[in-house]
Amino acid sequence: MEEEFPGALGTSASLALRLGQAIFSVTSLLFMCFHIQFYSYTSFCFLVTIMGLVIPWSLTLALVDVFSIFVKRPPRQVAIMSVVTIGDWVLSFLSLAAACSAASVTDILITSGHSNVNLCSGRICIRYQLSAAMAFLSWCLSLASSLCNLWLLPSL
Amino acid sequence: MEEEFPGALGTSASLALRLGQAIFSVTSLLFMCFHIQFYSYTSFCFLVTIMGLVIPWSLTLALVDVFSIFVKRPPRQVAIMSVVTIGDWVLSFLSLAAACSAASVTDILITSGHSNVNLCSGRICIRYQLSAAMAFLSWCLSLASSLCNLWLLPSL
Repeated sequence: MEEEFPGALGTSASLALRLGQAIFSVTSLLFMCFHIQFYSYTSFCFLVTIMGLVIPWSLTLALVDVFSIFVKRPPRQVAIMSVVTIGDWVLSFLSLAAACSAASVTDILITSGHSNVNLCSGRICIRYQLSAAMAFLSWCLSLASSLCNLWLLPSL
Repeated sequence: MEEEFPGALGTSASLALRLGQAIFSVTSLLFMCFHIQFYSYTSFCFLVTIMGLVIPWSLTLALVDVFSIFVKRPPRQVAIMSVVTIGDWVLSFLSLAAACSAASVTDILITSGHSNVNLCSGRICIRYQLSAAMAFLSWCLSLASSLCNLWLLPSL
């Protein structure tokens, strides 16, 4: 089983990156959604939407990686690799945007807490922060896989 | 005067992109800074910092483009193009993050305005929104030039 370019679609490094993205996205979603009324803030709704897009995308590509590693590597086609790379880039930009929005809204909820006690209480604030941090980590891994796929693209 | 790849460093399309980035960044900075106490919010400080980085970077590269177009094109070196491409990508991510942060903070200031009148008043809110929109347009142009430079890189 050759590993021609670590991180590109169909390698074990890519599988690790995809699983990491899915795990961080699920964690971010759980921190944000579980017993919190997140839908009163636009940014948090955006974060939940984007994480809900990243999870199926990462899991689908993780399945492709598992198939490539354990069964048989399908031949790499330029069209498929282009679609995967463009999808990765778009989701990477969107998850960066979602993570930054959630982080800045959390920051403003915390700093304006002294003037309006209803905005954010201690335990909820920490969960918002953790959710934004997980989305940021998911973005880092998403950027890594999109860079690897982009690097492979000219050699096809 | 050959135009081998429109948008790459040293072409007239690149000059237009750089000037557009500089103009949008300056506009965003003016909307944010002029007679507004932006420094009470972390996201707005971040936006001002990043726009303050984008402006000299874009103007320097615009000068390089002007020199290439009107005087003489220096030979393209892989090292210089790599530095320009990496700088473009980093600034592009940072300006997307700054634009999203500013936009989401503006949104939260507007929507929570009914509960706390001190957060944001009408004219100021519109200036925050315009500043975030200009930063977003600057990100679009920055992404365009980084894509063009990245496209050129493997052919060197």
